[in-house]
Parts: sequence; C-alpha cells; structure tokens
Amino acid sequence: MSIDTSLDAAASITETDIFDAHLGGKLTVKSTMPLTSKRDLSIAYTPGVAQVSRAIAADPTMAASHTWASRLVVVVSDGTAVLGLGDIGAAASLPVMEGKSALFSEFAGLNSIPLVLNTTNVDEIVETLIRLRPSYGAVNLEDVSAPRCFELEARLIEALDCPVMHDDQHGTAVVVLAALINAAKVAGKELGQMRAVLSGAGAAGIAIAQILINVGVGDVVIVDSRGIIHRDRDDLNAVKAQYAAITNKDNLIGGIREALDGADAVIGVSSSKFLEEDLAQMNENAVIFALSNPDPEVMPDVARKYAAVVATGRSDFPNQINNVLAFPGIFRGALDAGARRITTEMKLAAAHAIAGLVQDELSNEHIVPSPLDPRVMPAVSAAVQEAAVAE
Amino acid sequence: MSIDTSLDAAASITETDIFDAHLGGKLTVKSTMPLTSKRDLSIAYTPGVAQVSRAIAADPTMAASHTWASRLVVVVSDGTAVLGLGDIGAAASLPVMEGKSALFSEFAGLNSIPLVLNTTNVDEIVETLIRLRPSYGAVNLEDVSAPRCFELEARLIEALDCPVMHDDQHGTAVVVLAALINAAKVAGKELGQMRAVLSGAGAAGIAIAQILINVGVGDVVIVDSRGIIHRDRDDLNAVKAQYAAITNKDNLIGGIREALDGADAVIGVSSSKFLEEDLAQMNENAVIFALSNPDPEVMPDVARKYAAVVATGRSDFPNQINNVLAFPGIFRGALDAGARRITTEMKLAAAHAIAGLVQDELSNEHIVPSPLDPRVMPAVSAAVQEAAVAE
Repeated sequence: MSIDTSLDAAASITETDIFDAHLGGKLTVKSTMPLTSKRDLSIAYTPGVAQVSRAIAADPTMAASHTWASRLVVVVSDGTAVLGLGDIGAAASLPVMEGKSALFSEFAGLNSIPLVLNTTNVDEIVETLIRLRPSYGAVNLEDVSAPRCFELEARLIEALDCPVMHDDQHGTAVVVLAALINAAKVAGKELGQMRAVLSGAGAAGIAIAQILINVGVGDVVIVDSRGIIHRDRDDLNAVKAQYAAITNKDNLIGGIREALDGADAVIGVSSSKFLEEDLAQMNENAVIFALSNPDPEVMPDVARKYAAVVATGRSDFPNQINNVLAFPGIFRGALDAGARRITTEMKLAAAHAIAGLVQDELSNEHIVPSPLDPRVMPAVSAAVQEAAVAE
Repeated sequence: MSIDTSLDAAASITETDIFDAHLGGKLTVKSTMPLTSKRDLSIAYTPGVAQVSRAIAADPTMAASHTWASRLVVVVSDGTAVLGLGDIGAAASLPVMEGKSALFSEFAGLNSIPLVLNTTNVDEIVETLIRLRPSYGAVNLEDVSAPRCFELEARLIEALDCPVMHDDQHGTAVVVLAALINAAKVAGKELGQMRAVLSGAGAAGIAIAQILINVGVGDVVIVDSRGIIHRDRDDLNAVKAQYAAITNKDNLIGGIREALDGADAVIGVSSSKFLEEDLAQMNENAVIFALSNPDPEVMPDVARKYAAVVATGRSDFPNQINNVLAFPGIFRGALDAGARRITTEMKLAAAHAIAGLVQDELSNEHIVPSPLDPRVMPAVSAAVQEAAVAE
C-alpha cells in the first residue's frame, strides 16, 4: 500500500470530488473464479456445486471452509447515530456503512457488506440477525444510538456464536487506550496512578471507561451533559448507574471543572467544549484527547498550553485517534483464530499492539501510528489471535 | 468474454477441482476506489462521507444514485428445495447462492450477495426482507419449496417496492417459452394450436403453465405425482386448484399416458420418467423437453425417436435449457428501467428476445443460444427495459 500523508491532498477535496466518488456506491462484488466456460459453470454452479452443498449438509462445519460466510463481516446499522449527524435513518447511513465495508476489504482483507435496517427496535434487530446467521461470520455494529447500543450489543453477543463488536464503543476504546499508554510514557505518568476524566457518556465514553478500568487506570471520572456521574445521582440510566458504582472513587460532584481539578488526563467524546480555565486546573504534564470531529473540544494549539500530550480525531493535526487502527485487525484476528467472542483480553492485546508499534519515534507529537501504516493491521491481528488462542 | 464450448472440459472435472474452487467461498467484495491515502479516506469515509449521508437524509431519492443498494440483487433462500437435493437448510444452500450471485456479477454486471435464512416461515422471511429494504435493490428468490414459494413471492411483491422474482419459477418459464417458440417453428406447429403437457406441478411447472397460458398456447395439461390435474380432483392445494380451472380444457383424467395421447409438446420438470410407449402416443413432430438434472426424464437419443425437437437441462446435449439465459438480463433490464415490478409483459419480452437470437442457425439441434453467448444478456435486458418503459 503506497502512503500519501500529504495534508494538502485532503484539504483540497471538493464537494464534486466527494459526490462523484459515491456515484453508484463504493462497493463491488465479484466472482473469485472466472465464469467464462462451460467447465467454469459446471464447477461453480450446476452440477458441481451440488457436491459442495451435499458435503455441508452432511458436515455443517464445512460451511466455514467452503463458503464465504465465515469470513464475511456484516456492518449493521439502524442509522440512529450516524457520525455527527444523529438519527438520519438507515438509507442515509448507507454511504458510511459502505465506507466501513470498503475499509474492512482494503485494510483487513476480509469481505464485508452493509446491512442497514428500517427498524430501531432492539428485539427486531436481534431477531433479524439470528435469522440471517448462516449468511455471515461476524457483526460490526455501527452508529447505533446510546443507550440502545449497549443492550443491542449485549443481546447479539448472547444470541450469536460469532464475533460481535460495536465499533463506536470498542474500536474507539482500544485506540484511546493505545494512545493513553504512550501518552503516559511521554508525560512520565503511571496508568495506575492516573485519574482520567471522560467527557461524554455515550457509546464511546462508556466503552473507554470500561477499558481504562480493565487496564487498571487509577481512577476514571465520567461527566455527562448534567455533570459528574456519581453514586448519589438519581437521573442515571441503567448503564450509567452501573458505572457510577465503579468509577469516581472519591465520589466527586460538580461539572467538568470539578472533574478536571487535579486530573491527569481528559478524553472528550462529546461535543462539549473544554474551557482554558478548566484545563488549567489539571495536574502537571496532563494528557488531553479532544476527539470530537470535525470540531475538537479544544483546539490543539490551546490545549498544548496545559498538557504534555494532545491528540484529536483529525488527520490534519498530530496524534490522530482513528478507529481504523483497531477494527480491521481485531476482526481479522478474531476470525483467523476462529473465536466466537471478542473478549476484554483481545481488546487489551489490540491496544498494546498498536501502542507497541511506536517505539523510538515516541514523542508528544507521535503517540500512535498513522492510520495508513501497513504494519498496524498485521500486528493487531496477530496480538488478537494470540490472545484468543490463549483463552 | 471468451467462450469454451468444449464438452470434454466439463466432463473432466474432478471432485478435487470442485472443492478446491469453493475453498473460502466464491465471492469477494472490493472497494470501487483506492483507499491508500488520507485524501482517499477523507472522500470515502470521514469527513467526506457525511456530506453524502446528509444529502440522502434531505433527499431520499439520492440513495438510488449514490449508494450501491439500488443495484444490489439479494439472492434469498431458506434452503428448502436446493437443486435436486431437497431441504438441506440455509447453510448448505450457500454454495448455490454464492454461485448465483457470481453469475449476476459476471453475466449482468450487477452486484449480488446471498442472504440465506434460518427460518422457513413465510411471515418471518417477508418481515426480514422488509426490515432490510434499504440495503438492496432487488430480490432473486431461489430454491424455496413449493407451494410455499408461491405465497412467499406474492407476499414479497406486495410488500416491497422493487423487483422480486423467484427464478426457479419465472427464469425457467421464460427460457422454456423461448425454446418452445423456436421448437414450434422447427416442428411446423402454431403455439395457439398446441396442447402442451407439463410433467411436474412444483415451482417450475406452475410458472411454465402460467407463461404458456399467457402467451396463448392452445391448451396446457399439468400432471403431478397423482396424475392429470383436472377440475374434479379434491386433493389439490390452492395453487393447483387455481390451475385446474384454467388448464386442461377437455378435462382429461388419468396419468401421464392419457395426457400425452395426442399432445404436441411435453415438458418434464419433475423426476418422473417418460416411457417410450407413452411418448409414442404424442402427435407427429412432437416437442420433448426433458429438463430434470442431472437425469432427464428420457435420454435424448430415445426421445428423438418420437419427436422433431428434443431439449434437456444438460450442457452435454444440444438445446440446453438454462436459467442463465434469462435471469441476468431480466434483473438488469428491470433495474436499468427503474421498474418496481417484473411483469408478465417483461417476462414475455425476455422470452421473445432469447428466441429471436436464433435466426439462420435455427434447427432441431439449435433452438436456444448458448448460455455463454455474449449477445444474450444485452438483448434480454434491452427487451425487458423496453417492456417496462412501455407499461
């Protein structure tokens, strides 16, 4: 893969460039073998194919090796939380899902198709995927609104004997953890001693909190639109209430300002802005990840005044936190291992693998590899596979 | 497309050839644009894709031009009537459905994916496809058992605003009609004067009866496993009862022998054998289509003793009746026309287009084009599109 890291290239994109590239969609399905002779047809279709169908009917495990389904990732969405656009519906979400499937193909060498649904009912989405189960090998949930996304993912994991992952949750969490591991090194901090503040308690915020707790970060404080999540709040949904019990050890109350006072890291995954006077309350050598796109919670030049390390979700600043670092390798590794679940250990292994690719070049402006670094997918995939086998 | 019409090539296929060709499945999904630079990612994925999603949310008709869905054919099966193998289930049916999708890609230039379902409940299959409606542009039903297939197709046509066709019914019927049009010419018969006997009242038998009636064949007599379908039988399912009323004008009773007595054509689409003494009762210059695969109802060398024209479903005899002559062009034409239905007129147009491709070469051993004839798909597609526009 040749890599063009020119920032100007992206900056020069016109609306015409974008709409022209989307004409007719972004995916194409081809036959893996030529179909130009009677011999070809007799192998790929009748009468030859009957032998393969008969063999699978006799031994269902052969479907894994002799159909495409076992390595097909379905990108599933109901279009309720699409990028920053919100609930725009299934049809309008399709270009995003096609893009995601294209990334699975290009970055992970997997087949992938979008399945977008005209229902937002969790029962119906689960039921639909159960009925289609023989058609695919893994489920990438995408752009489903919180808190429904938590129940939907949990229900699918329970119902399906294949890898299921809501990428907006766990893909993001894995890359954030990778970045935080390296940011802590640069800042001279120990993860176990850090207090990390999460601004945002949606899909990404909750999953990041979970992985930071799993990896042993000292304390995690989550702030939602009504302030710090603590044990005495009575306005929390079930998921937030669960996290109230395992985060915020000192039972801090207040808003983002009180949360940042004495914090070591802040990770923004909502559109709430970070004020300079609040950031100024953080500890020395703070870490600021302002991940909202396209408008970060604070611009990097401002954030740098109060932090040792700054990251955003944008490609035109250093330290881009981008899910494409994680999901291709996670799914590829899980499928290569024949895993039925994507476990916590597999996600942690992915994060460490991403972080481990930045060695000598580690600096405050280089805490994660480029999304286009061709070493990333194989390293993540191998680590995930190893973790899966170890379990 | 280069064409290998060697019969030896197909005859030399080994089990290893077949299983090797199926390893990993027969389909692959690729991105239509390169994804190797930040610029590429910014166009195909974030942030560029948001503009396309926003545009579709504002104007839903843009989904047709700017996603892949509107030209994606889903090949849908519950695995209940797969080739000659019967009810082998969804997973075992997948190699057949992958092959069908591969043919849509190779022959029609359309995208196609298999969706196989772990349910045989008609309500549930319809419900599933309604939920997934924004994900695709047409439905090719495949290998669904009769009589469920009739209800399922009718329900889907009613529920979905896109082309739906059960290929085992109508693809077969279109090609049979094309072959019969030319066979009648060779035999010196008029369709309107012919009595055609159908041996088999499953998906193909009923659909062939329907199209022969639609085109004005003199009379059609259907024979199922219990004999001739006539108005006094009390053991008929709803579909057969409906056809009892519109076929068999003379209310013949008895079995295949009585049906063949004085018949002009017989079309076999069940595994019931044709006996020589029964075929001998047919009119002069009879037409015999023995379409069961791989074992025809009667072998061509025997059939020729009693008929002016003989056809089978096999590639190693002359006059192969193969659905691939019809379905690629039918779907391509319907989608090119933006048609919401595949109508009777469109099916008749397809049959005439196929028949029309055999002109000067018309003979008793050449009544249909080769399945690999590159003129077929464009001719069928154009005829279907014209019929769609005319309606």
